[in-house]
Amino acid sequence: MYSPITEEKVFKDPIHNYIHVQDDVIWRLINTPEFQRLRRVRQLGTSFLTFHGAEHSRFSHSLGVYEITRRIISQFERKGYSDWPAEERQVALCAALLHDLGHGPFSHSIEEAFHMHHEDWTCRILLGDTCVNKVLQELGADFPEKVASVINKTYDKPIVMNLVTSPLDADRMDYLLRDAYYTGVNYGTIDIDRILRMLRPHRDRIVVKESGMHAVEDYLMSRYQMYWQVYFHPVTRSSEIILRQIFRRAKELHDQGYAFQFMVEPLSALFANCLSVQQYLRLDEALIQTAFLQWTEEEDKLLSELCGRFMHRRLYKYVEIDNMDLDTIDGIRQAFREAGLHPEYDLEIDFPTDLPYDKVHSDLPLYEQQILLLDRHDTLREISEVSEIVRSISGIHKGRYHLYYPEEKITRVLGVMPKNIASLFSQHN
Amino acid sequence: MYSPITEEKVFKDPIHNYIHVQDDVIWRLINTPEFQRLRRVRQLGTSFLTFHGAEHSRFSHSLGVYEITRRIISQFERKGYSDWPAEERQVALCAALLHDLGHGPFSHSIEEAFHMHHEDWTCRILLGDTCVNKVLQELGADFPEKVASVINKTYDKPIVMNLVTSPLDADRMDYLLRDAYYTGVNYGTIDIDRILRMLRPHRDRIVVKESGMHAVEDYLMSRYQMYWQVYFHPVTRSSEIILRQIFRRAKELHDQGYAFQFMVEPLSALFANCLSVQQYLRLDEALIQTAFLQWTEEEDKLLSELCGRFMHRRLYKYVEIDNMDLDTIDGIRQAFREAGLHPEYDLEIDFPTDLPYDKVHSDLPLYEQQILLLDRHDTLREISEVSEIVRSISGIHKGRYHLYYPEEKITRVLGVMPKNIASLFSQHN
Amino acid sequence: MYSPITEEKVFKDPIHNYIHVQDDVIWRLINTPEFQRLRRVRQLGTSFLTFHGAEHSRFSHSLGVYEITRRIISQFERKGYSDWPAEERQVALCAALLHDLGHGPFSHSIEEAFHMHHEDWTCRILLGDTCVNKVLQELGADFPEKVASVINKTYDKPIVMNLVTSPLDADRMDYLLRDAYYTGVNYGTIDIDRILRMLRPHRDRIVVKESGMHAVEDYLMSRYQMYWQVYFHPVTRSSEIILRQIFRRAKELHDQGYAFQFMVEPLSALFANCLSVQQYLRLDEALIQTAFLQWTEEEDKLLSELCGRFMHRRLYKYVEIDNMDLDTIDGIRQAFREAGLHPEYDLEIDFPTDLPYDKVHSDLPLYEQQILLLDRHDTLREISEVSEIVRSISGIHKGRYHLYYPEEKITRVLGVMPKNIASLFSQHN
Amino acid sequence: MYSPITEEKVFKDPIHNYIHVQDDVIWRLINTPEFQRLRRVRQLGTSFLTFHGAEHSRFSHSLGVYEITRRIISQFERKGYSDWPAEERQVALCAALLHDLGHGPFSHSIEEAFHMHHEDWTCRILLGDTCVNKVLQELGADFPEKVASVINKTYDKPIVMNLVTSPLDADRMDYLLRDAYYTGVNYGTIDIDRILRMLRPHRDRIVVKESGMHAVEDYLMSRYQMYWQVYFHPVTRSSEIILRQIFRRAKELHDQGYAFQFMVEPLSALFANCLSVQQYLRLDEALIQTAFLQWTEEEDKLLSELCGRFMHRRLYKYVEIDNMDLDTIDGIRQAFREAGLHPEYDLEIDFPTDLPYDKVHSDLPLYEQQILLLDRHDTLREISEVSEIVRSISGIHKGRYHLYYPEEKITRVLGVMPKNIASLFSQHN
Repeated sequence: MYSPITEEKVFKDPIHNYIHVQDDVIWRLINTPEFQRLRRVRQLGTSFLTFHGAEHSRFSHSLGVYEITRRIISQFERKGYSDWPAEERQVALCAALLHDLGHGPFSHSIEEAFHMHHEDWTCRILLGDTCVNKVLQELGADFPEKVASVINKTYDKPIVMNLVTSPLDADRMDYLLRDAYYTGVNYGTIDIDRILRMLRPHRDRIVVKESGMHAVEDYLMSRYQMYWQVYFHPVTRSSEIILRQIFRRAKELHDQGYAFQFMVEPLSALFANCLSVQQYLRLDEALIQTAFLQWTEEEDKLLSELCGRFMHRRLYKYVEIDNMDLDTIDGIRQAFREAGLHPEYDLEIDFPTDLPYDKVHSDLPLYEQQILLLDRHDTLREISEVSEIVRSISGIHKGRYHLYYPEEKITRVLGVMPKNIASLFSQHN
Repeated sequence: MYSPITEEKVFKDPIHNYIHVQDDVIWRLINTPEFQRLRRVRQLGTSFLTFHGAEHSRFSHSLGVYEITRRIISQFERKGYSDWPAEERQVALCAALLHDLGHGPFSHSIEEAFHMHHEDWTCRILLGDTCVNKVLQELGADFPEKVASVINKTYDKPIVMNLVTSPLDADRMDYLLRDAYYTGVNYGTIDIDRILRMLRPHRDRIVVKESGMHAVEDYLMSRYQMYWQVYFHPVTRSSEIILRQIFRRAKELHDQGYAFQFMVEPLSALFANCLSVQQYLRLDEALIQTAFLQWTEEEDKLLSELCGRFMHRRLYKYVEIDNMDLDTIDGIRQAFREAGLHPEYDLEIDFPTDLPYDKVHSDLPLYEQQILLLDRHDTLREISEVSEIVRSISGIHKGRYHLYYPEEKITRVLGVMPKNIASLFSQHN
Repeated sequence: MYSPITEEKVFKDPIHNYIHVQDDVIWRLINTPEFQRLRRVRQLGTSFLTFHGAEHSRFSHSLGVYEITRRIISQFERKGYSDWPAEERQVALCAALLHDLGHGPFSHSIEEAFHMHHEDWTCRILLGDTCVNKVLQELGADFPEKVASVINKTYDKPIVMNLVTSPLDADRMDYLLRDAYYTGVNYGTIDIDRILRMLRPHRDRIVVKESGMHAVEDYLMSRYQMYWQVYFHPVTRSSEIILRQIFRRAKELHDQGYAFQFMVEPLSALFANCLSVQQYLRLDEALIQTAFLQWTEEEDKLLSELCGRFMHRRLYKYVEIDNMDLDTIDGIRQAFREAGLHPEYDLEIDFPTDLPYDKVHSDLPLYEQQILLLDRHDTLREISEVSEIVRSISGIHKGRYHLYYPEEKITRVLGVMPKNIASLFSQHN
Repeated sequence: MYSPITEEKVFKDPIHNYIHVQDDVIWRLINTPEFQRLRRVRQLGTSFLTFHGAEHSRFSHSLGVYEITRRIISQFERKGYSDWPAEERQVALCAALLHDLGHGPFSHSIEEAFHMHHEDWTCRILLGDTCVNKVLQELGADFPEKVASVINKTYDKPIVMNLVTSPLDADRMDYLLRDAYYTGVNYGTIDIDRILRMLRPHRDRIVVKESGMHAVEDYLMSRYQMYWQVYFHPVTRSSEIILRQIFRRAKELHDQGYAFQFMVEPLSALFANCLSVQQYLRLDEALIQTAFLQWTEEEDKLLSELCGRFMHRRLYKYVEIDNMDLDTIDGIRQAFREAGLHPEYDLEIDFPTDLPYDKVHSDLPLYEQQILLLDRHDTLREISEVSEIVRSISGIHKGRYHLYYPEEKITRVLGVMPKNIASLFSQHN
C-alpha cells in the first residue's frame, strides 16, 4: 500500500541543503524510536577526539544516504530509463535509509571487542518486534524481509543491491561529503551533482557514463585523502585502542564475577554475549560514556585508569615505523614485559592500510568492487582500464606500523631495550 | 610565569580553519578534565531535534571564542595600540576559553528547572579544587581569581571585560558562525575578518571604526535571523518544554521519596540541590540521556511517558497565537482541566521575544549593551545614532504566543472549549 | 512548435552549480550572436575598479536568471498548481533569458549620457532583423512580440510579467547571489532554495507562503547590504562619473566637428544619436575600452586626461557630507570657478539613496513593488503588515552627499573658499 | 629606501578574503598603468567560452600571488627562521606581484602565433621607460634589475627564485584556487593554510615539513584535475585554435599588403614583429576583440569567417581518437584536400598532455621541478620517494588525439575517406 504524503516534508541539512521526504513510509520510519536512536551514535566514533567538529551522528548520515538515493531514483524516473525497475523505489529508499540501523555505540571498537556485525543487527531490527518492522509491514508482509535481503545481499534484483552497495554508492558519497564538512578538512569536496547526472541503470548494474570519468577519479582521490587524513588518523586509532582495552578489561572483570559499582541492564547482557534486540536498542554512546565516567571511580585500577584516559583524553602516544620484522616486535614486547609493563594493555601495534580503489578484492562479489564506465558505443569498461590515474593507484597498499603506549611509562622501557629498537621511540616529536 | 610553547599547536576547525594555540597555559587548560567535559555538553541543547546537524559541543565553541579573542589581541599587539594593556593578554585569553566552563547539560532547561546559573558554576570551578584551578595558579596565586572576576564582571580593567563580554564579543561572533554552519542555515555568514579589523581599543572600551558600520549592521541582522530561525524555533522550544517537565516531575518524585529504578550519584544531589563542584562536573548530557532512556521504564507513568517523548522525539504540537488576554489563557487552562488533562504538564504557554539590538536595556551596564562607533575625528557615537537601519530595528519586540500540548489529547479539550477559543487550535497544519 | 532537446545540456555555473537547458529554443537563443554579445558587457559596469573580482558578464547573469525561472516553473509544474498557466512556460523562459539583451556597455553611464533605455533596445532586438528574432519566430509569428510585451509590461497574462518582474524575481535573486560571489562580499547569501519552495502562483500573482517570511526578510536585508556595500560604493560612483564625463566630452567634440584620431562606426552613430539595431549590437565594452585607450593620445587635453584617468584608474577623490543646502553647493561651485577649475568636469555632486523595500512607490504598478504573503487561511497580506522588521525599514531613505573632484587640484580651491566650507574637504583620510 | 605605508590597505578578494598591502612600493606598483593593464587580460584566455564564469583577469591573479607570498614571508619572519634572508622581502614581493606583467591578450595563442615569450616582455617592462620601472628605482638603482633577474632566474639568491618559482609556488596555488572558484568546478580546493604552515626555508630552498605530505598530495591531485577538467578542455582548445588561425590569417594578409578596413597602431606593429614596449603595453583583449568584431566585415572571406566564429562562438567540433599513426593522419589530411577543404584552416590535430608531477623534466633546473620534504631528522627527500601516490602518478602521460574541424563541412569529407577513418568521425555526440 503506497501512499505519497500530502505535502513534502523537508529537513534542513548542511550537506544537501534540504532532505526531501515524499513518501509516507519514509516519514514514519524516521519517527520510529529505532531510527531516532541513531542520533545517539556518532558517525565517526571517537574521531571527535581528533577533530572536535566531528560530533555528527549516524542519524544525519542516514538521512543523507536516503536523500542521495532519492535523487538518483528521481532522475532515473524522470529520464525514463527502461533498465530501472520502477517498482523497486520503496525497497531501495527504505534500504538506503535503514542500512546503518544496526550500528552500535563506537561501532568499530565494540564490534571488534565483542565479535558482532552491525549488518546482522540491522537485519535483526528490521525483522524483529520493532516499530520499524511494523511500519515496513504496512507495505506488505514480506516487505521487511525484502529490505533486509538488500542489506545482507541476497535480494533477487541485483540492480537494487548495486544501487545501495557499490564503490560509488550513496553511503560513500554522503560520508565523504559529511565527514569532510564536520571535521573541516577540505578533501571531501566531490562534484556529486555531476556524478549523479552520469549514473545510468544498465542491465543489472548501475554504471557511469564515460564522460563522468574525471569526476569519479576525483571522488576516488578524495576517498583516499579522507582515509589517510581522517579515518586512519593515529590519534583516532589511539582512542579506539583505549576503547577496546576498556571493553576487554570490563569483560574480563565481568567474567571473573567482579562487582561493578555501576552496571545497568544492556551492559551486562553485552558482556554476557546474550543481547536481545530490545536490549541492543538501548545501547548507545550516552550509556557507554556514562558507564566509563562512573568507572573512573572503580576499584579495579586498570579499568579506572583506562576510563580516565578515554574520558579526559589522555591518550596513548605513538611512534610510526616504516618496516618491522617479527623479531623486532618480539623484542619490543619482551622489553615491555621486563620493564614491568603489561605487554597487551600498555602496548598496541597497529598497521592501517587502505586501497583507494582496487578492482578485484578477493572476497567480495565483483559488483561491489568495480566501477564500470559506459562509453558511447554502449560498451562497459572497468574504470582502471580507461583511467591512467586510477590504474596507477589501484592496489596501492600504503601503510606503516604504529606503536601506541602510555607516554609516562616509556622511559622505564627504553632502559631495558636494545639500542637500535629504543632509538625508534626517540623519534616522536 | 609566562611561557610560550615551543611549537604552535593547531586544531582543525570548520569555522576558523585552524585554531592556534601559542601559550602553554592554554594548551594545558584545554587538556584538563573539566574542559574536556564540555565535549559532552551540546552547544545548542535540544536544537539537534529540530536541526539534525546541530550536534556540536560547547568544547568546539569554547575553542572558537578563544581563537577569535586571540586574533583580536594579536592584532592589537601587532598594530601597537597604546590603549590595549598588553599585560592582560593571558587573563583575557583564559577568560575567553573558559567562560562557558560551568555550562551543564541542556543548560537553559536545567538552569530554569533548578534555579542555577552557569556563570556561578564557572567561577566555582575556576576557584575550586580542580585541575583548571591548578593550571591557572601557575601564573600566579591570584590568577584564578582574576579570570573569575572577568567572568563575573568585577575585574578592575573594564577593557578586558568589554573584550570578553559585549554585544559584539567573540562569544557572539563564534556562535553565530558556528551555529549557522552546523545547522546548515545561511544566515550567520558575517564578515568576521572585517569586523575584527575594525575593532579598536579606546580608553576602557573596545569600539568599532566607523567604516565598519555596515559589517556591524549585517552582524546584527544575522543575529536577528538566527534568533528567529534557530534559537526560538518552536520545535526546539517544544523539546525544551518536555525537558523541563521531566526535570520537574523527577524532582517531585525525588522529594516524595519515590524509589527510582535508575538513580546515580550526581542526579540525586541535583534533585536535592546540594551539588558539590566535583559532583557538578560529572553531570553531562550522556548521563541525562542515559537516565531518561532508563526512566522510560519507570513505574511512574507521567515520568516514563515524558522521557519516551523526549528520547523518541514525540514532541508536543503547538499553535501560534498573535494576541491573547489573561481571560483567554484562563479559559484555555480551565478547558484542559475540565477535559481531565493536567493543566501544567499537558499545556505550556510560551512567549519568546528578542531584541536584535537595543541600546539601553534596563538591567545591564552600558558597556555590555552598546556598540560604539569611532569616527575620524575620534568621537564616539552609539551605533543607532549613525545607522538608520539599526535605529529602525532597535527596540523591536517581536513575539507571538505559542501553546504547546500533546496532540493526541487535544480533541478531548476542544469539545469543552468556547468555540472562539477552540478555533485557535484548528489552525495548525 | 515546441521541441524538447534530445539530451539536456548543462553549463557549469558557480552560483547554481549547473544551468540546465531542456528546450531547444533556449539552446538556440543562447547561441545567437546577439546573446553571445552579452559576454562583452560586464554585469556590474565599472565595479571591477572597486572589487577586482567583479569581472562577470551579463551573459552569466542572464543564464542564471533563466535557470532560476526554470526551477520555479518546474516546481509549479511538478506540484500541479492550477493557477499557473502551463502553456506560458516558453514565453516566460525566453523573457527571463533575454530580459537584459539590450544592455549596452557600462549601461548606467551610457544610458544617462545618451538618454537611452536598455528595455527599449531589448525590444528592438527582439523584434528587429536579428537571429534572436528568427529563433523566436519558429515558435509562432507572434512569439517575438509576446516576449517583448512581457519585457515592456503590456502582456495580457499578468502572472507571467509578475514572475519575470517583481521585488522577488529571478533577476534580483540571481544578481544578489552572483554579485556577492564575484565581488567576494558575504552579504548576498540568501536561502534561494527555501524562497523558491515557498513561491506559489495565486490568481494572477506570484506570492510567498507565509512560512517563508523570514527567508524573505533575509533577502531584503541582503539586498540592502549589497546596495550600500557594493552598488553604491563611492569608488564605483567615482569611476561612473569619469565615464559620463568622457561620454559628454566626446559628444561635445563630435558635435563641434572635432577630428578624432580614433573613431569607428558604431561610435559616431552613438554620438549622432542615430544608432540602428545592427550598429547598437556592435557596441560593447571592448570597443569602449579600445576607444578610451586610443583617446589617451587625443589632442583634446580634457578628453585625453579623462580617458587616462579611467583606463589607469586615477579616479576622483570624494568627501562625504551629511547635509548640504543649496547655498553651500553654490558656494562650492563658485570657489571651483574662482580657482580656475571647471565647475562641471572638476566637480560632481552625487546623492545616492536606496529603499531596501518600499510597499508603495509612486510610479510603478503595485505588482512590481509588493511582496505578498499567503497565510494558511488563503488570505494575502503585504509583507510589511506581517513583518515588523520589514515595516521598520520600509521607506528608509538613507543618503549622504558625495563630492567628487580631482585630488591634485583641490588645494587651489581650498584657498578661495569660506573656511566652514573648506573644512568639509579636510575630512578625507 | 623602504617605507611601510601609514595604514595597511586592503582589497576584497573572493579567494583570500582580503589582500593586505603593507608596503608603499606595492601600493604604488598596483597603481601604475602597466599593472592596471592586467585588468584587460583574462587569466584563462578563451576558457570563458567553455566556463562562462571564467572572466577573471590577470590583475586579480597577480594580487593573489602577491598575497600568498606575503603570507609565506610574514610567517618566516614571525617564526624567525634563520635560513630566510629577511632583506629579500621587497624583492620577493615585487617579483611575485609583477611576474605576469608581460602577459599579452590571449597569451598562449598570441605567443605561439608570434613566437613571443611573456617572461621576456615582463623583463622589458620592468627595465624599460615605464612607471613600474620608476617606482622600483626608488628602492635603489639596481632594484628593477634585481626583480627582473628573479623572473628570468639569474638572481644570485636561489631561495628567492625558489620561493617565486617552484612546483608549489604562490603562482600555482593562487591559480588553482582562483580558476576553480571562477569556473565553478570543485577540484581546486586545496588546504592552502596547511601548506603554507608547512613551508620552511632550508638552506637555499623552500621545502615542506614531512607532516604536510598529504596536503601536498592533494594539491598535486587538484592540479591534475584542473588540467584535465579546465585547462585542456577540448572546447577551450577549439577556441584557441580559431584564435591562432585568425592571427595566422591576419598576418598572412598583412604580409601580402592587404588593406584592412580596421587597423590600429599596436596591431600593425604586432604583425610586423617590431613592437616597442610602449606599443606592447597597448595590446589588450579589448583591442583584440574590437579588431575581430570589426574584421567580421572584412572582404577576405577566410578572415571574416574565422572572426565570426570566434566572436559568436561558432567553434570547431572535435573527435577524440585514442591512437593514430602517421598514415592515418596523412589519410585524413588528404581527404580534406580532396573534398576541397583547406588542410590547415579546416583541420587541426591536437595532442594535449600533462604531467601531474614529474620529478625530473629534462630541461628545467631541479629546484623548479622537485618538491622536497623535510623530516624530523632534518633530512630532505623528494616527495615521490615518500608518497606512494605521487610515485604512482609521476610520469603519467595521459593524452588523446583531438581533431578539430568545421562541423558543416565534414559530410563533404566523409564521402571521400576510407571507411575505417570516416568511422572515427561518426563517434561524436
